[in-house]
Amino acid sequence: MKKKQSANMKDVAALSQVSIATVSRFLNNDLSRMSEETAKRVKDAIDKLNYVPNSAARQMVTKSSKMIAVVVANIDDYFSTELFKGISSILESTGYIGVLFDTDTNQKREIQLMDSVNSQSFDGLIFQPLTSDMSLIENEIRREIPIVIVDREIELSPWPQVITNNYEAARNAMLKFQTKGYKHVIILSSEINIASTRRERYQGIKSVANNVDVIEISEKSHNHKDIHKEIVSLIKKSDEKTLIFAIKERWLLEFIPGLMTDGYIDDMNVTATGFSDTDLARAIEPKAELIEQNPFLMGASSAEVMMDLLNDDDAKKIPSKLIIPAKLK
Amino acid sequence: MKKKQSANMKDVAALSQVSIATVSRFLNNDLSRMSEETAKRVKDAIDKLNYVPNSAARQMVTKSSKMIAVVVANIDDYFSTELFKGISSILESTGYIGVLFDTDTNQKREIQLMDSVNSQSFDGLIFQPLTSDMSLIENEIRREIPIVIVDREIELSPWPQVITNNYEAARNAMLKFQTKGYKHVIILSSEINIASTRRERYQGIKSVANNVDVIEISEKSHNHKDIHKEIVSLIKKSDEKTLIFAIKERWLLEFIPGLMTDGYIDDMNVTATGFSDTDLARAIEPKAELIEQNPFLMGASSAEVMMDLLNDDDAKKIPSKLIIPAKLK
Repeated sequence: MKKKQSANMKDVAALSQVSIATVSRFLNNDLSRMSEETAKRVKDAIDKLNYVPNSAARQMVTKSSKMIAVVVANIDDYFSTELFKGISSILESTGYIGVLFDTDTNQKREIQLMDSVNSQSFDGLIFQPLTSDMSLIENEIRREIPIVIVDREIELSPWPQVITNNYEAARNAMLKFQTKGYKHVIILSSEINIASTRRERYQGIKSVANNVDVIEISEKSHNHKDIHKEIVSLIKKSDEKTLIFAIKERWLLEFIPGLMTDGYIDDMNVTATGFSDTDLARAIEPKAELIEQNPFLMGASSAEVMMDLLNDDDAKKIPSKLIIPAKLK
Repeated sequence: MKKKQSANMKDVAALSQVSIATVSRFLNNDLSRMSEETAKRVKDAIDKLNYVPNSAARQMVTKSSKMIAVVVANIDDYFSTELFKGISSILESTGYIGVLFDTDTNQKREIQLMDSVNSQSFDGLIFQPLTSDMSLIENEIRREIPIVIVDREIELSPWPQVITNNYEAARNAMLKFQTKGYKHVIILSSEINIASTRRERYQGIKSVANNVDVIEISEKSHNHKDIHKEIVSLIKKSDEKTLIFAIKERWLLEFIPGLMTDGYIDDMNVTATGFSDTDLARAIEPKAELIEQNPFLMGASSAEVMMDLLNDDDAKKIPSKLIIPAKLK
C-alpha cells in the first residue's frame, strides 16, 4: 500500500504564516508563547493540509509519545480490563493515552511484549507482572522510564507498587465463615504458585481453616463438566459444612451458577464466596457474601502515581506502596 | 526521572567490530547479508552494553514499528477481548505485536484514540468501529496504513471487512424457537441503533416475531435489580410462551442466571437464548441453545488479512468482505 505524499511542517508554517518553531511548539502542546489566534491559525492549516505530524521525527525532538504502556496478565479476567479502565480514566484527563498489552498468562509472551515496550517510545509503563521474581523482571525492564507495578507484589521493588491486601482479606473472610460453621473449604484457583496474589489468598485461608481441598484450574484449557463433577464429589464426601472459595473471579463466574441451578448451593450446608472484581459476580450471586476488590480504583491510583512520576523529577512524595483494601460485603 | 546516558549504535559497532550499517541491518532483522557468527557478535555487544535502539531514530529508517494498533469497542465485552486474543495469536507468529486501544463505547474517546493512532508509527490498524457512519470514520482515519474493519459492517467500505451473519443468525434462531411455540420475545440489548450488529440482529428477530418487547440497557450505568424486575413483569404479563433473547452476551451473563435461580426460566413456558462469544455463557447455561459467535476466529482472520495487506503492495487477492457465520448450538 503506497503512502500518500503528505504535507510537512514547512507547508503548515507557510500556510499559517508562522515560523516552523511555532508549529513545532504547537505540535508539542507548548502554547505558552503563542496567542490563541496563532494557535487557531496553525490548527486550521493542519486540518486544511490534512497534515499528520511524523511521530518518529517528533519524538526525536520531544522524547514524548504521550502514550503509557499498560502490560496486564490476562484480558480474559475482568480484573485486568477494569484495571485498564481505571488507568484510562485518569490518563484521558491528562492528555495521555493508555495502550494495552496482554500477556495472556504466558511468561514467554510477557518477555516478548516487554522487548517491544523497551524499544518503543512510551513515556511510562504500568505493569501487572506474572511473576514476582525480581531478577526476572529486572531483566525484562531495560528502559529508564517511569514504572508502576500493580496487583502482583514484588519483594524489594525499586518501583512504586499499587496492591491489595490479599492475605488479610482472605483470612478475615475465612474467619467470618468459620464462625458460621463452615469448616470444610474447596478452593477454586488458577495455578497458585505463579502469582503472589493467589499465594497470599491461599495462605490467608490456610491460616484459619484445616480441612481444605484445592482445585487448580488451567486458564488455557479445562473441561468445565469435569471440574463441576470434581466440586460436587468434594461437596458430597464432606460431613462438615462446605465453603466454596473462589480466589479468582473467573472461576466464581464459571462454576457457581451451575452449582446453584443444580441445587448444590443451599446457603445452609454449602455456600460460596470469592474475590470479585466487578458487579457481574454480584449480579449473578445477589445473596452471596463476596470479597470485593476494586481494580478500577487500583488502576486509577497507579495512573495517578505515574502522573506524579512523570511530573516530578526526583519523585519525593511518591509512596513506595499503595494498598487498596478488598472487603467482604 | 533522568534518562541514563546509554550506549549508541557506534559503541555497538565498535565492540562487535562491524560497521554501523551492519548493526543497523541487525536491528532491522535484515540478517541476509551477515553470518550467524556476526549476528551473534552484534547481539552480544547489544546485551553487554545494554543498548536500547532508539525506536524513533530506527523508525525514520525502517518506517516500521512492528506494532499493529487494534481499536475495539469495549474490553468489558468478551467479544472485544477474544477478538484481540485471536488477532494476537496470528501476529505473534509473524513477529508483530498487537496493541489494544479501548473505545469504552464512547464516540468522543474513539476519535481521541484514532488521533493518537494517526500520529504514532503503527504498521497497521484493525478497527472495530462504534459507528457505521462512513463519513465519520473517514474523518477519523488520516493515515495511509493498511486497515481492516471487523465486526461492525460499513456500507461501501474501502477497507476489507471481517464480519458475522447477524441478520441470518438471529432470524434462523427466532424461526427455530417459534416452531417450538415461543411467540413472545423479550430482547435484551444495549442501545440498538448505534451498532450495525445490533440493528441487524433486531431486524432478524422482527422479521419473524410480532410480539416483541425490547429492553435497552445502558452499558455505562444501569440498576441490575430494576432490569431484573422489568424482565419478570414482562414475563408475567404475557399469556404466550416467552423467549428471552439477549442480542449481547454481557446481558445474557448478567441477567439469565438470576432468572434461572429464581425459577422464572423453566424451559417450558419461558426460555432464554442469545448471542454468545465465549464458553462462559455455555458454562452458565449448559442446557440453553445459544447463537455461538467466534470472535477469536474473527480476530485471527482479520490479522491474516492484515498480514496479506502488509506483505502485498497492491493486495489483489484480499477479499473485500469475510463472513464468519454464527450458529445456533
